[in-house]
Amino acid sequence: MSDALKAAGPAEGPVCAPEMGGRDRIVLGHGSGGKLSHDLVARLFTPVFDNPALRAGDDAAEVAVAATGRLAVSTDAHVVSPLFFPGGDIGRLAVCGTVNDVAMLGARPQALTAAFVLEEGLELATLQRVAASMQAAAAEAGVSIVAGDTKVVQRGHADGLYIATTGLGVIPAGRRVSGALARPGDVVLVSGPMGDHGLAVLSARGELGFELGVPSDVAPLNHLVAAMFAAEEGIHVLRDPTRGGLATTLNEIAQQARVGIVIEEGRVPVRPEVAAACEVLGFDPLYVANEGKLVAIVAPEAAEAVLAAMRATRYGEAAVRIGEVRAGPAGRVLLRTALGSHRVVETLMGEMLPRIC
Amino acid sequence: MSDALKAAGPAEGPVCAPEMGGRDRIVLGHGSGGKLSHDLVARLFTPVFDNPALRAGDDAAEVAVAATGRLAVSTDAHVVSPLFFPGGDIGRLAVCGTVNDVAMLGARPQALTAAFVLEEGLELATLQRVAASMQAAAAEAGVSIVAGDTKVVQRGHADGLYIATTGLGVIPAGRRVSGALARPGDVVLVSGPMGDHGLAVLSARGELGFELGVPSDVAPLNHLVAAMFAAEEGIHVLRDPTRGGLATTLNEIAQQARVGIVIEEGRVPVRPEVAAACEVLGFDPLYVANEGKLVAIVAPEAAEAVLAAMRATRYGEAAVRIGEVRAGPAGRVLLRTALGSHRVVETLMGEMLPRIC
Repeated sequence: MSDALKAAGPAEGPVCAPEMGGRDRIVLGHGSGGKLSHDLVARLFTPVFDNPALRAGDDAAEVAVAATGRLAVSTDAHVVSPLFFPGGDIGRLAVCGTVNDVAMLGARPQALTAAFVLEEGLELATLQRVAASMQAAAAEAGVSIVAGDTKVVQRGHADGLYIATTGLGVIPAGRRVSGALARPGDVVLVSGPMGDHGLAVLSARGELGFELGVPSDVAPLNHLVAAMFAAEEGIHVLRDPTRGGLATTLNEIAQQARVGIVIEEGRVPVRPEVAAACEVLGFDPLYVANEGKLVAIVAPEAAEAVLAAMRATRYGEAAVRIGEVRAGPAGRVLLRTALGSHRVVETLMGEMLPRIC
Repeated sequence: MSDALKAAGPAEGPVCAPEMGGRDRIVLGHGSGGKLSHDLVARLFTPVFDNPALRAGDDAAEVAVAATGRLAVSTDAHVVSPLFFPGGDIGRLAVCGTVNDVAMLGARPQALTAAFVLEEGLELATLQRVAASMQAAAAEAGVSIVAGDTKVVQRGHADGLYIATTGLGVIPAGRRVSGALARPGDVVLVSGPMGDHGLAVLSARGELGFELGVPSDVAPLNHLVAAMFAAEEGIHVLRDPTRGGLATTLNEIAQQARVGIVIEEGRVPVRPEVAAACEVLGFDPLYVANEGKLVAIVAPEAAEAVLAAMRATRYGEAAVRIGEVRAGPAGRVLLRTALGSHRVVETLMGEMLPRIC
């Protein structure tokens, strides 16, 4: 063994054995299940996500849940490129996306798992930044990352890293929230401006050709949802308009409930910078992904109370009413323009912005 | 629009719009969240995994759990290459791996989620095969795949597909299984021969230079675990020796419990073909991954009953006692050779077989 290797000792530095290819990058050995894998978990992940379930060190984590019997479970894979963008990164996106999906079922998110596919050669510093961001998002949401897994693929077989998160939370007894529950006469609300996230990622790729100046809106919305339910238990539908945007989300709901939805063009909030960028690029903000916004469909008599609760809560300050639910045309979404005419808003057909979440 | 496109109509064929690049391959649009994504889920995944939670169509799935309050949660990313190998495939591996991790906490696996990262250009027929294999494994284990997600990355940014699964199950009241509970005097059992899976995958890559003739042992072990607990509630440790093999698993346990473990070389079961292949390749079967085996550590008075229960149950027929737990050397695993000498069995240090699970 050379002097350099002897001096370095076993697994010195954060998690790399020098003879394995570097002190600061992921190597295939980190995915082997052996010492390098253990060191990666023990020195990079566990200290950041620190909680009793992770520290126990068993294959699975034990999570105590209140004995109500109804769990909401959701999973997401995250392949955003680039990994870091104005307003967030793949880690924050992973945690918030899954926290929000669980919250959209009216549940209180409690625990997350995170499975990583790392590319050989990924800088450990990058992974540390992502892990820290995940923990910050988890702390903001009040959830714990209780279990995880790490696999490594050869250089070129992943884009730095992919993350798959799964979240679980308890649905309070008696609460039911579902796209199927939208009823004619219901009011459609959104929590704020549409289109920020998709364009922020595009901007980070340098594909806009100009500085957007608007960060991603990625945020955990479970506290906002809790505030809404505190005001009004009978919220019918909650949905976060991510891939495919508001238009796709409303179409999903219209089809699930077999109702019509009409939104007013002038009422859908869009930041001026986003509107201008969409105009230049030929995009419609209705189809651009959001990662910190929600759509709520509530009974008309509940709308004012829910709006007030939203506007008094972080991430809901700009909440507005944008439309209503009709009996028909069933499964259709219509946009009422400033001229009073109606045009059909289709669901997104193909691929507009790949790898934005 | 050309005649060919008009004739094909919208989204004809399984899930591809012809103008999007083909009738039989994954395109970027399948990850957009729009119509192609919906069709992929509705026509390929939902019919295969069919259950009420998936059919509801909301963002998260509702899972009813018995109100005992203690859940086991585990997650795994799967990057095995090739996707199909003798005895299994990435789909079966994903389901069984996560079912087993949950079972190793003494829990009854109940529900799984599955997040897919698909490579642009992946054949739909391949994805259908994988989904069908997942459902067969889930049915064998008695679990439902209740939620999922699909993202698509450009050609070259994934190897066909990666899958991340998360599983949950209920831990019966009063049951506690953990690596930390191994005690001096306990008996170490394994459910069958070591090393099949890792070598089967290597063989499928054509890297062995000869036909192995031994398939992967990938299997769901939750029914075996249930039979063991029916015989003896006081099982101290359960672990499935996957990446890093039996040696790494025993080292983990020895360190968690701060005990010594001694195994007898002649007692560790290894198929003759696997032993011979390892000899030729310079591998030690103690370090080769298994995907359908478990290690159990039980009180000495319980060993006969547990062994009998294992031998009477599928996947446990070849169960044997291989060693025992000692007070020391704490954190160490020793192998007692045929000559009566002891050698230290270290945990796996680097990377022996990448991408085997």
